[in-house]
Amino acid sequence: MALALSLGRRGLGNTWPNPAVGCVIVKEGRIVGRGWTAPSGRPHAEPQALAQAGEAARGADVYVTLEPCSHWGKTPPCAQALIDAGVARVVVATGDSDERVSGRGLEMLRAAGIQVDTGVCEAEAREDLKGFLSKVEMGRPMITLKMANSFDGRIATATGESQWITQSPARRLVHAMRANHDAVMVGGGTARADDPSLTVRDMGVRQQPARIVLSRQLDLPLSGKLAQTAGEVPLILCHGQNAPDALVQAWEGIGAQLVACGTRAGHLDMVDVLQQLGALGLTRVFSEGGSAVAASLLQADLVDHLIGFSAGVVIGAEGLPGIGALGVSQLARAPRFELMDTQAVGPDVMHRWRRVRT
Amino acid sequence: MALALSLGRRGLGNTWPNPAVGCVIVKEGRIVGRGWTAPSGRPHAEPQALAQAGEAARGADVYVTLEPCSHWGKTPPCAQALIDAGVARVVVATGDSDERVSGRGLEMLRAAGIQVDTGVCEAEAREDLKGFLSKVEMGRPMITLKMANSFDGRIATATGESQWITQSPARRLVHAMRANHDAVMVGGGTARADDPSLTVRDMGVRQQPARIVLSRQLDLPLSGKLAQTAGEVPLILCHGQNAPDALVQAWEGIGAQLVACGTRAGHLDMVDVLQQLGALGLTRVFSEGGSAVAASLLQADLVDHLIGFSAGVVIGAEGLPGIGALGVSQLARAPRFELMDTQAVGPDVMHRWRRVRT
Repeated sequence: MALALSLGRRGLGNTWPNPAVGCVIVKEGRIVGRGWTAPSGRPHAEPQALAQAGEAARGADVYVTLEPCSHWGKTPPCAQALIDAGVARVVVATGDSDERVSGRGLEMLRAAGIQVDTGVCEAEAREDLKGFLSKVEMGRPMITLKMANSFDGRIATATGESQWITQSPARRLVHAMRANHDAVMVGGGTARADDPSLTVRDMGVRQQPARIVLSRQLDLPLSGKLAQTAGEVPLILCHGQNAPDALVQAWEGIGAQLVACGTRAGHLDMVDVLQQLGALGLTRVFSEGGSAVAASLLQADLVDHLIGFSAGVVIGAEGLPGIGALGVSQLARAPRFELMDTQAVGPDVMHRWRRVRT
Repeated sequence: MALALSLGRRGLGNTWPNPAVGCVIVKEGRIVGRGWTAPSGRPHAEPQALAQAGEAARGADVYVTLEPCSHWGKTPPCAQALIDAGVARVVVATGDSDERVSGRGLEMLRAAGIQVDTGVCEAEAREDLKGFLSKVEMGRPMITLKMANSFDGRIATATGESQWITQSPARRLVHAMRANHDAVMVGGGTARADDPSLTVRDMGVRQQPARIVLSRQLDLPLSGKLAQTAGEVPLILCHGQNAPDALVQAWEGIGAQLVACGTRAGHLDMVDVLQQLGALGLTRVFSEGGSAVAASLLQADLVDHLIGFSAGVVIGAEGLPGIGALGVSQLARAPRFELMDTQAVGPDVMHRWRRVRT
């Protein structure tokens, strides 16, 4: 199952709207088939592993990270494929909450006389599949919020200088993190200030993550890098209902996808923004700033993973904070996260945290 | 030598004004003597190791982390003791910059026909002895600046609530860190706001570190915990020349040590403060806040070690910053530190950095 999980992770970021699943087929102690969800989500992991195993699948044990699907979608149901191949046993890490599956895949297998065991490495699988499960269960993608800041939590000097606080190993790791998310998201202020392209560079990725910019009024430079590349890499602009029509049309004209979202207290309503992104099929969104977007996500308790890069530089209190005002006066009400790991990345420190929802 | 270094570290925090030295004596592949500088600095490491070795010291190899002293202080010179014991070889990690020693210890040994090797594990030894070397070479103690903050670099909510951001394992480690420094230092604002005792608790320490409070006007509560314990654990108050005489006398009356320091631009001049602390014999000072003291130390480039504890809680931009304004507008001018290590401490992250002076 550990191997199946690690195969499944290969697909993270490029299987959406489908889950990134891994599958291993074992016959008499030997691995005879391996598969993981292919880019853009098809074929699924199981048929690929079965194809690799061929006749050896008969009587074999199958390890799969998510309950095999039971419904006809754009592909035939994987549960049926496993039955047809004559496997003896299927070990599943976690059930699929998708209402079209939800237990039916396991039932089909059992009804065909296949031994089914569930819950093996379930916590790890649910962590890996968190984006997919979040979309299915809550209608929104999981959110990873990344911050690269100075020792004292600043992302730029008072004059706005921010390049570079962390060094190239950390920046390279950020590109790898972008690549295992479905989309990279920033606020309009960051898009205006940094003119980023938000693409994954020097990683040999086949499929670039989509870019999402949140801008209530769509006051973004039509001549910037995001606009220039809108025809090549998906660009999703979330704006308010009252954004000027002319701008909506101009951006649509250059190939951007426009999403009108609700507002709350003069800002985009992050709950609605994420529901709409979930409806587009996005399962994993990597938010890179700025401080207002970070604060809005945290205030609405929408952050699932928090990733900090801390540099050994001190900017001081005049520097720009990485996270804006949250309106938290009592510590007990401040959002708390559980440490996943910490490690040195070149001369900087990375620390990863996850929100524990009970 | 690794063992000698680790023995030497046992003395950190309770040998000042003397260095915390370690010594190991090896005869025919067996360790026959071990010693480290005793609390309050005497006896030195070498005579203790020699006493343990007894007759076995004759013809033995001696590993010592700092050049043996050559002068009569409150103890006879260690170099002479090594000669009298008839050792064959002395391996030294680093030379003593104290002008009363500085090479003379090695000369005495060589003149007596003892083989002397130097520079073994020198970088590690200089790191361990940094406080002593700082006092001898620059006249000031080394400064460790500690900050325990939220993920976003805040030490309290806007209303001042700060207990607790980090959890008990981190707080316990802070007590252990206090114990291996000669003194703990805070600003007057922290002393007023938190009413701390600044003692080491639950560690079984024999000698409490001194407490230092920086307060230009001495406007500190005479009824607080620091005042109450001034007779038991040394309390050093650094104040401006213009602090009211009545307060100076009141604090002296309850057992505090008063140090009048120069001022610069309305604040205590940190360079003068540290020179005066060095003159008192302090070699290792642990600065715990608040944000103004941290900023003053960083601005004057007096911070040698920077220790951060980061908690998985987000307070937001209204929270109080851990480090005050530095007046840094260009990133290239912001003080940079080199990562020593990072590790999880209970649910929090610790990251340690050192200033690289070239």
